[in-house]
Amino acid sequence: MSPPSLPSPKVIHVDTRGAVILSEESPETRDSRGIYFPNHIEPVSHIAVDVGGSLAKVVYFTRSPESPSIAATHGSSSPSDISTPRSLSPSNSQHNGSQHNGSQHNGSPTPSSSMKRSGALTPLVLEPHHSHAGNGISALDDGFLRDSLIRRSIQHFPGGSLNFERFETDNIQDCVDFIQSLIQRSAEVNNVPIAEMRRGVKIMATGGGAHRFYELFKDTLQVEVQREDEMECLIEGLKFITLIPDEVYYFSDELIHSVSNPNTSCHTCASPKPTLPSISADGALERPSPDPPKFGVTFESNPTPQLPCLLVNIGSGVSIIKVDEDGTFERVSGTSLGGGTLWGLLSLLTPATSFDEMLAFSDKGDNATVDMLVGDIYGQDYSRLGLKSTMIASSFGKVFRKGGNKKSFSPEDISRSLLYAVSNNIGQIAYMNAEKYNLDRIYFGGCFIRGHAATITTLSYAIRFWSKGTKRALFLRHEGFLGAIGAWIRNIDATEEH
Amino acid sequence: MSPPSLPSPKVIHVDTRGAVILSEESPETRDSRGIYFPNHIEPVSHIAVDVGGSLAKVVYFTRSPESPSIAATHGSSSPSDISTPRSLSPSNSQHNGSQHNGSQHNGSPTPSSSMKRSGALTPLVLEPHHSHAGNGISALDDGFLRDSLIRRSIQHFPGGSLNFERFETDNIQDCVDFIQSLIQRSAEVNNVPIAEMRRGVKIMATGGGAHRFYELFKDTLQVEVQREDEMECLIEGLKFITLIPDEVYYFSDELIHSVSNPNTSCHTCASPKPTLPSISADGALERPSPDPPKFGVTFESNPTPQLPCLLVNIGSGVSIIKVDEDGTFERVSGTSLGGGTLWGLLSLLTPATSFDEMLAFSDKGDNATVDMLVGDIYGQDYSRLGLKSTMIASSFGKVFRKGGNKKSFSPEDISRSLLYAVSNNIGQIAYMNAEKYNLDRIYFGGCFIRGHAATITTLSYAIRFWSKGTKRALFLRHEGFLGAIGAWIRNIDATEEH
Repeated sequence: MSPPSLPSPKVIHVDTRGAVILSEESPETRDSRGIYFPNHIEPVSHIAVDVGGSLAKVVYFTRSPESPSIAATHGSSSPSDISTPRSLSPSNSQHNGSQHNGSQHNGSPTPSSSMKRSGALTPLVLEPHHSHAGNGISALDDGFLRDSLIRRSIQHFPGGSLNFERFETDNIQDCVDFIQSLIQRSAEVNNVPIAEMRRGVKIMATGGGAHRFYELFKDTLQVEVQREDEMECLIEGLKFITLIPDEVYYFSDELIHSVSNPNTSCHTCASPKPTLPSISADGALERPSPDPPKFGVTFESNPTPQLPCLLVNIGSGVSIIKVDEDGTFERVSGTSLGGGTLWGLLSLLTPATSFDEMLAFSDKGDNATVDMLVGDIYGQDYSRLGLKSTMIASSFGKVFRKGGNKKSFSPEDISRSLLYAVSNNIGQIAYMNAEKYNLDRIYFGGCFIRGHAATITTLSYAIRFWSKGTKRALFLRHEGFLGAIGAWIRNIDATEEH
Repeated sequence: MSPPSLPSPKVIHVDTRGAVILSEESPETRDSRGIYFPNHIEPVSHIAVDVGGSLAKVVYFTRSPESPSIAATHGSSSPSDISTPRSLSPSNSQHNGSQHNGSQHNGSPTPSSSMKRSGALTPLVLEPHHSHAGNGISALDDGFLRDSLIRRSIQHFPGGSLNFERFETDNIQDCVDFIQSLIQRSAEVNNVPIAEMRRGVKIMATGGGAHRFYELFKDTLQVEVQREDEMECLIEGLKFITLIPDEVYYFSDELIHSVSNPNTSCHTCASPKPTLPSISADGALERPSPDPPKFGVTFESNPTPQLPCLLVNIGSGVSIIKVDEDGTFERVSGTSLGGGTLWGLLSLLTPATSFDEMLAFSDKGDNATVDMLVGDIYGQDYSRLGLKSTMIASSFGKVFRKGGNKKSFSPEDISRSLLYAVSNNIGQIAYMNAEKYNLDRIYFGGCFIRGHAATITTLSYAIRFWSKGTKRALFLRHEGFLGAIGAWIRNIDATEEH
């Protein structure tokens, strides 16, 4: 069967008080879905940027005066959203390194009537007493959300969207230019002088690049730049985002099995029959696409409090952070074998020029031509140790034997092998830390996964395997933006009213 | 400073009751040192072979009538040892894949007068009441060794040597032919018909290939082939070999530091100042070579009981086995990122055609050109998390940025980066398992390490780092032969007297 397709909208309008993903767009930019907050009112503007080793992630808020239902119906045609320009770098939207257009609708900028209402790019604070029609998530009345987000405010705007963009850190100027144009456009649309606009804008910067590029941001944009600790932002972002209905998802055992074993329909397989933990959201399997796969992805539609948990943030490298029930956290581990490693290896070993191309290669590959399996060494299972003949004993272990001739191996097989190697390894180290700290929930964040089924399956299976089914791998639709979201969120308390 | 040189003899004659390494030969075949047992008497002959994913390791015994002191003086010129033929495969002695000649002395086979004494390739059993002049190791009177090894026997032969050979599993026929010629030669030298010789020889076969190649061995050699469980043999081999004086070694903190930081003499460095555990053998730093390096390797000259411990066997893949105080063991973990992975990757990414060439490349490389360091991301230390700017954040993380042009990167830098990546990863996973099972001693076995200083340093440092100095990485001179030695040892009890 073909890999399951995850919903990949360009903008998602989500009523955090309802439980509905209101609109879905084209599948191009699965990571850059907007989030709609109908009641979020905050008078101070800020843009958040998280500059990592390879990618710079931007989060910014645009207001929408329309109610969620209208926005949902119209989807991309809502005139109220600021249309962001296409990638400033001359590359197509498939290119991994280019910006993803978070809220592009018609392909051209359209000044919004609503933007005339106020000059600011204004996030709005949630008003707890507003009860929007929706699925009524009781969790959202829970004190936790209120404590994180709510600020009483004089001004009430009907809502807006969080938008997401990505840039290559190597082309940081593109990121700066983009933010520059955002500020510029906002000033134009609202007929305020740029100097006044700048006084109202604050850049929340996190990630390593917040330090490296502090001067660049400050001097070029001429706005206040506030540096925020990366780990703090990651955790804030995680705490926040996991409350959004249908943000968190995971693969069921059946889905893991069918993706891992596309050629078999047999259910007696290598994976242990795990006991499903009680955190599964519901029993229904989603069928998000017109051509439904055999099994869909399971979304946490009614998010419950998610702490304590382990966060495994997979970027260029990997950070592993334990988060206690009260929200305190500690970076307990990590590994240098991350997204950057896979990216780097495959860029030399295959013709792929983007990470998405590499993932596409891996989908078509057969790792057994390059990996040494248990069966290759033993001729059979090593049953005494519970090692099945199909398990990988040595990643890339067959390559040297064939005399090191690169042409002997297809880029597809190489890609699959190394994707498995990196993912399995991360899963194993993640599991060991979850076990050490007695945590059952393991969230995977970072730009590495990008909803790729084989990666998700591999991580899910690794956690299942090592934990004998007692722990669960959980994934996030906005996985790459945790830090940026956290930076954005963290300063709602700190903002002043205009 | 140049990397420390480990003693790399061709044959070591070791009196297990003394504490002296009696002779050292050329540095060519560091792995294949013979071990001399003056009192080992056993009437039944057997040869042991451990066939792994990539390499087949052979252990066999040859007798020497001379006393240890004479053998020590003469070293290679001892006529009593059976000279084994040079590699049967047409390759030089540097080639990783070829056989290493465990007991070659003069380069040509010399029938031994002592071999006429008895027809058998006979290992000898240790007689506890023999007290040879030597360093008097009290540990060897310890019941543990007796329980493992001692068998009363009518026949007393003055001694002999354990010899070691390696072959590529892909060329298993070479291994079979070698054993064939061993048996043949023994028959000729002792004037016994081959059929009679064969009746007295038993092949102890372990590793995955014991199953795969059982028929091949049995039918070609026409001797009894007994299959032994790989894990059992590994552990038996470990328990045995760690009792041999100067078999176990480790790098001191100073040595780790100086190898890791060849350009600095400063002692305030990234590595934490660990507390040395009480298992360090002695304070003296060995100076084994005529040109002593700044710091030498520390050998456990007076081995104490080594259990409980963790054994990390690094072959094509990695097995992690915990061994309890009473010798019972369990394979608790492993990783598919092993020697085969590094070997395979470097065979495609560099011009190297052997593993030793790859290691040589790595010695000259600078990983900072291909690895993304903490400093590259943050522009400085990430001190809040204790991450120094020189630490590796993403292995190979710089490669993609440079557009994936292979020519941008030297094979030396690539080799060093990937050696670090694989070794650091193994060290981390090993540490986590040692911590989980509360074990302070971590032995590294398998053919991956082969006394390579950078590898040993990386593994040692990883253990030090993660354990904050409470655990120690220990290495074995006969690291690759644990399984074969264990197979050989295991059947001393089972042998019958001739």
